[in-house]
Amino acid sequence: MPVKVLFVGDIVGRPGRKAINKFLPGLIKELSPDFVIGNAENAAGGYGLTEAVALELFNAGFDLLTSGNHIWRREFLPYLAKAERVLRPANYPAGAVGKGYAILEKNGLKLGVINLEGRVFMRHLECPFRVGLALAENLREKTPYILVDFHAEATSEKLALGWYLDGKVSAVIGTHTHVQTGDERIFPNGTAYLTDVGMTGIRDGVIGMRQDQAIEMFLTQIPRKLEVPKTGPKKLEAVYLEIEDTGKTSLIKRLRVED
Amino acid sequence: MPVKVLFVGDIVGRPGRKAINKFLPGLIKELSPDFVIGNAENAAGGYGLTEAVALELFNAGFDLLTSGNHIWRREFLPYLAKAERVLRPANYPAGAVGKGYAILEKNGLKLGVINLEGRVFMRHLECPFRVGLALAENLREKTPYILVDFHAEATSEKLALGWYLDGKVSAVIGTHTHVQTGDERIFPNGTAYLTDVGMTGIRDGVIGMRQDQAIEMFLTQIPRKLEVPKTGPKKLEAVYLEIEDTGKTSLIKRLRVED
Amino acid sequence: MPVKVLFVGDIVGRPGRKAINKFLPGLIKELSPDFVIGNAENAAGGYGLTEAVALELFNAGFDLLTSGNHIWRREFLPYLAKAERVLRPANYPAGAVGKGYAILEKNGLKLGVINLEGRVFMRHLECPFRVGLALAENLREKTPYILVDFHAEATSEKLALGWYLDGKVSAVIGTHTHVQTGDERIFPNGTAYLTDVGMTGIRDGVIGMRQDQAIEMFLTQIPRKLEVPKTGPKKLEAVYLEIEDTGKTSLIKRLRVED
Amino acid sequence: MPVKVLFVGDIVGRPGRKAINKFLPGLIKELSPDFVIGNAENAAGGYGLTEAVALELFNAGFDLLTSGNHIWRREFLPYLAKAERVLRPANYPAGAVGKGYAILEKNGLKLGVINLEGRVFMRHLECPFRVGLALAENLREKTPYILVDFHAEATSEKLALGWYLDGKVSAVIGTHTHVQTGDERIFPNGTAYLTDVGMTGIRDGVIGMRQDQAIEMFLTQIPRKLEVPKTGPKKLEAVYLEIEDTGKTSLIKRLRVED
Ligand SMILES: [Fe+2]
Ligand SMILES: [Fe+2]
Ligand SMILES: [Fe+2]
Ligand SMILES: [Fe+2]
Ligand SMILES: [Fe+2]
Ligand SMILES: [Fe+2]
Ligand SMILES: [Fe+2]
Ligand SMILES: [Fe+2]
Repeated sequence: MPVKVLFVGDIVGRPGRKAINKFLPGLIKELSPDFVIGNAENAAGGYGLTEAVALELFNAGFDLLTSGNHIWRREFLPYLAKAERVLRPANYPAGAVGKGYAILEKNGLKLGVINLEGRVFMRHLECPFRVGLALAENLREKTPYILVDFHAEATSEKLALGWYLDGKVSAVIGTHTHVQTGDERIFPNGTAYLTDVGMTGIRDGVIGMRQDQAIEMFLTQIPRKLEVPKTGPKKLEAVYLEIEDTGKTSLIKRLRVED
Repeated sequence: MPVKVLFVGDIVGRPGRKAINKFLPGLIKELSPDFVIGNAENAAGGYGLTEAVALELFNAGFDLLTSGNHIWRREFLPYLAKAERVLRPANYPAGAVGKGYAILEKNGLKLGVINLEGRVFMRHLECPFRVGLALAENLREKTPYILVDFHAEATSEKLALGWYLDGKVSAVIGTHTHVQTGDERIFPNGTAYLTDVGMTGIRDGVIGMRQDQAIEMFLTQIPRKLEVPKTGPKKLEAVYLEIEDTGKTSLIKRLRVED
Repeated sequence: MPVKVLFVGDIVGRPGRKAINKFLPGLIKELSPDFVIGNAENAAGGYGLTEAVALELFNAGFDLLTSGNHIWRREFLPYLAKAERVLRPANYPAGAVGKGYAILEKNGLKLGVINLEGRVFMRHLECPFRVGLALAENLREKTPYILVDFHAEATSEKLALGWYLDGKVSAVIGTHTHVQTGDERIFPNGTAYLTDVGMTGIRDGVIGMRQDQAIEMFLTQIPRKLEVPKTGPKKLEAVYLEIEDTGKTSLIKRLRVED
Repeated sequence: MPVKVLFVGDIVGRPGRKAINKFLPGLIKELSPDFVIGNAENAAGGYGLTEAVALELFNAGFDLLTSGNHIWRREFLPYLAKAERVLRPANYPAGAVGKGYAILEKNGLKLGVINLEGRVFMRHLECPFRVGLALAENLREKTPYILVDFHAEATSEKLALGWYLDGKVSAVIGTHTHVQTGDERIFPNGTAYLTDVGMTGIRDGVIGMRQDQAIEMFLTQIPRKLEVPKTGPKKLEAVYLEIEDTGKTSLIKRLRVED
């Protein structure tokens, strides 16, 4: 019996949480995953997370929340410091609040999860290749089932990390661009790979935010905080994995459910 | 009868051209497109184009070649200056060699093609939104069938342009990231949209280049010119469109053919 | 009699305004400039400007305030829209609130001032070279005395613009890096040039902001809004120009006054 | 008797070496420095270094050459691997060819030199703050005289490192922007600081390269390899330091000699 994992792409604001409440139960019923994980870096108002929103997501069925560059809201840090089930990317410098990996246990199964952040067009973090490999080797002593959420912008960096960790982890799943890619596959040594799993929230926005404000920003070049649309059709994007007891993934399937 | 267009993603080096020779004839036979277009910015050795490579691609069945940031090889400029069927992005400053749009004519049909380049994480070009809209309105006086190749990095900029041009052109198809996205759709006003069509070339590389060299570059942070692998399985990624005589697209279909 | 201009570097927060109140009167007394101009993009709390702060600066003796990338505070836009004596960079796209150049008149003298923003490592604005040259040619029909505030990051872009406008304007003075450079000179065709005039505010901070917070940000890679220190020694950095009636500058002198 | 150090800013191409040959002997005669150091990352044709050029510079009087982002020419790596007196930035990842610090010995005096590279707008290297501090503490066990060449773009990162290392090293001298800043000072704990020492080479170019080509590149946005001008007036920019036996610097003086 493979370990079944459902991983949901960046949940953006209130519409994202509504999409979770609407679509996640059906997916869970259909797939009966052993573990449900989601990237929650945009879950609170489109930017970061709050304790209340994290609890709302755990209630909705998530076992663990991963994140990325948007997680560092000041007021969230006390909760992040003690949270057992919220990750921030593992390759922030030593001393960063929170933790970058976890081992989930359920029904006698252990799933290791590693959260990493890319550097191309992003911040000057520790090398995600070295940190990722070291954590993978460490976690493998405890479980063969290991999922990596690689939160990154550039396709080249994501693919390179996927190949680099092929055979070392069960899956490398990209987040951050909010657009689901169609390149899911299983690499020769058993690692499932997908450049980006996509997002969960407003379907007709610009990566989950207001279309009009995004267009205005590109036209004027004046920076602004984009808002999450209040209404509109929603979607949930995710990936479903079946991982064998060798740690190799035998099935990777992209999912999209929408209004 | 709709106008049928086949648009092929970034052709990378010799393996890309081999993939064209191997897979394109079958696609043409199967789909009998009225127009065959491909992005050739990486067709010569992974970086740019040469006259010989352009002619090879025309012989293989392309009616028009679009491009992007990598087109500006010095030795190619004389050919680019006079080429009728090679585009460079239209939003380079006035005075740039070459041209950024064209109207193809075949079997009494006219297809307008506009090539644009994004600015996020890229160069400081003219605004692709304004240039794109102006060209679209101009071309619409001559034909309702208009395809935009938006060569850009950021998903936000691509989606924003897609929405901005919805109803103004028949399709906005992204290139440059070399990873095919799975978000093809037709927007409410009839514009087909796909964030990225993907690439044509080596299947198991890092966006068409050598895996080992890409990984080494990320690990060492020492810049290097990546090479195209000499051998290995290949793939062709493309998108197929059917555009009605209103200029609205009725069908968008992603394609991937591989060894 | 040359036209005498005093141009003060980026005024940062309350300490910057205190430095103005403390040091500017002495400079004015000593140099009796015809025109006093300052870059005020950081004058309100380190980020942007407010109407109250602008008025405070006019009262302190400024004839005109220039700015840069930080000017776009939402609540300031109504004032910027009507302000006669506050500039934002001229090379924002058409339709931007405010204006990018002005002609000051005093004692029968006219001084043209053009504000431009660089693009390297910054935003995707209109070409500062083309916009700058066009405005210079336009203003020259009204006065030979023209000052350019080029708010930019990269030394290469600043020097290139300086050379490009040599003989077209009286001076190209850089702002934005908050560190005064020591390369003041008069180019062969009479244009005075200085890569950066420096800043006005806290002397022992990191470009005017809190040392501890800046260091923390570099160490942790977690973004944060830096604050202006409440106390500490202050400095005023500026440049003084004497422009002949040919429009050529005959004297450029860097100034620094500090506690 | 203080230790006297002369540090020369980025030497750019053949004109840079000519400026060395012309101006360095006079400076050495005038100042009789104990140690002469120069940044040579652009010494060969404007990009990188070669063994022949390194030897030419040693012959001209340099005791040690530092460098920066441009040092990684493939053909230079074998020499860099064994060179005793050429540094590359110390904060490249473990395994990088060459070394990032050295202790020079002359006349019974020891000078520690650390080369670091910034990350803002540059590469994803190890943290220059942590690497710099660790090396400083290490070298201090051997000598109180320690010079840091911080090769970086952003003034904020340079100032922050200067303050961070105040009291830990004798001097933090910036390189890379090729424009000498006018902010030399001695920080409260004895560390001399200068944001950028400037460059050595063609005086009337754009940071040492051809004016016309730089302007063309900004106007067209088409990337090109800039060339070093063949002729024209030259300059040498440098900084002179006197370091007491406490390791504190008592004198910092900017220098510029030009045709
Ligand atoms: Fe996100
Ligand atoms: Fe993100
Ligand atoms: Fe490409
Ligand atoms: Fe490209
Ligand atoms: Fe500023
Ligand atoms: Fe600024
Ligand atoms: Fe340099
Ligand atoms: Fe450099």
